[in-house]
Amino acid sequence: MSKGELQWIIPDGYIPPDSSGQLESHESICVLNLNPEEVVVTVNVFFEDREPLLGMKTPVSGRRTKHIRTASLQAEGRQIPKGVPYAMEVASSGPVYVQYSRLDSTQAENALMSVMAYPVKA
Amino acid sequence: MSKGELQWIIPDGYIPPDSSGQLESHESICVLNLNPEEVVVTVNVFFEDREPLLGMKTPVSGRRTKHIRTASLQAEGRQIPKGVPYAMEVASSGPVYVQYSRLDSTQAENALMSVMAYPVKA
Amino acid sequence: MSKGELQWIIPDGYIPPDSSGQLESHESICVLNLNPEEVVVTVNVFFEDREPLLGMKTPVSGRRTKHIRTASLQAEGRQIPKGVPYAMEVASSGPVYVQYSRLDSTQAENALMSVMAYPVKA
Amino acid sequence: MSKGELQWIIPDGYIPPDSSGQLESHESICVLNLNPEEVVVTVNVFFEDREPLLGMKTPVSGRRTKHIRTASLQAEGRQIPKGVPYAMEVASSGPVYVQYSRLDSTQAENALMSVMAYPVKA
Repeated sequence: MSKGELQWIIPDGYIPPDSSGQLESHESICVLNLNPEEVVVTVNVFFEDREPLLGMKTPVSGRRTKHIRTASLQAEGRQIPKGVPYAMEVASSGPVYVQYSRLDSTQAENALMSVMAYPVKA
Repeated sequence: MSKGELQWIIPDGYIPPDSSGQLESHESICVLNLNPEEVVVTVNVFFEDREPLLGMKTPVSGRRTKHIRTASLQAEGRQIPKGVPYAMEVASSGPVYVQYSRLDSTQAENALMSVMAYPVKA
Repeated sequence: MSKGELQWIIPDGYIPPDSSGQLESHESICVLNLNPEEVVVTVNVFFEDREPLLGMKTPVSGRRTKHIRTASLQAEGRQIPKGVPYAMEVASSGPVYVQYSRLDSTQAENALMSVMAYPVKA
Repeated sequence: MSKGELQWIIPDGYIPPDSSGQLESHESICVLNLNPEEVVVTVNVFFEDREPLLGMKTPVSGRRTKHIRTASLQAEGRQIPKGVPYAMEVASSGPVYVQYSRLDSTQAENALMSVMAYPVKA
């Protein structure tokens, strides 16, 4: 089994509602799966003022990365709302590595931020 | 009890005094509480040239996140001054996860930075 | 032997295809080798939709840093394509420290992001 | 004795040679000293193509932070040159916490990046 962690935390989630210029505002959850087998990644979302949105699942093939747009995730027809502060727990069926990045193009030029997600040690 | 840490450190705190464009300059301390119960988060602030400002408290409900604007914190009527370098210790009554982000719109376009706070292992 | 780690992970790799203004869009893998001897750093690249590109090697002298432009790496005449999401594993023949930074000047002004790479503990 | 670490690593150092707009390009090493006593912080700098520049010292008072401009550091009359890639080791006489941030205003608008320095566990 490859190294990595099964659970990662990203406290600062936010999908900017506006875009301008060439690039669209978005967030990416970047997952690297060094295992030979596919894993399934589950994203659970926590809000400030409402019940969590749980169980948004995405497969990541073996020895592949996937840069998941948070706006593309869904579970039972629900999606992460734009313009609302939230936080994420990323759980995986096998050990992976997770980084989180946001591009904000609310104003005419883009702004970038990125963090390694916080690993929860088994 | 959920995983997480009780103490987190953010050495680079700074509330930009100026804003321009659509978005206001600000910092956020983003806390995720995966416990079923509410926790109380205490922010202690350290300066370069004056005594610390201790004991700014905020509750975070169970299975919720809170993105705390540093400019909104207060203790005994005192607040974090703008335009002054400082550092933060974030202590929690229960295990949480903490990320720190700053939006600087001093100039016409916004700039973003973010770090996972540094966990102090019990 | 100096401290440090032999393996580091960077899940969010991306070479912006466009540049404008004074500075060219680029990524840097910043390696610090505190050992007295040279080490050899091997970068392995993983994609979303194709086989990995493995074995891009760079020497880093003893008590020196190297800020490696990802666009300069090659193995068997192949390079990392621009405008494609990917992820990196950085392996070293001796213990080192690794940080990853990206400058994006797609739009008229530059945007910066940086993360410490994720250390895989031996 | 307070918690914290005695040695921290920042592989991506760079003082942008140019500034424009309201804010000057700069880097800050942000140190938090939670001990009651003063500590002395020593910054050692490593380059790509020349001998290291060692022993740049700064005191940080007890229960205080210091946001150290890298351009202000010196040892034996030597300073960190602008426009040159380098890396830093930050060593302290007592346990501290260290974050690194860069403001780049080479182009008309500012760009920000920040990372927690990498702790070397004793």
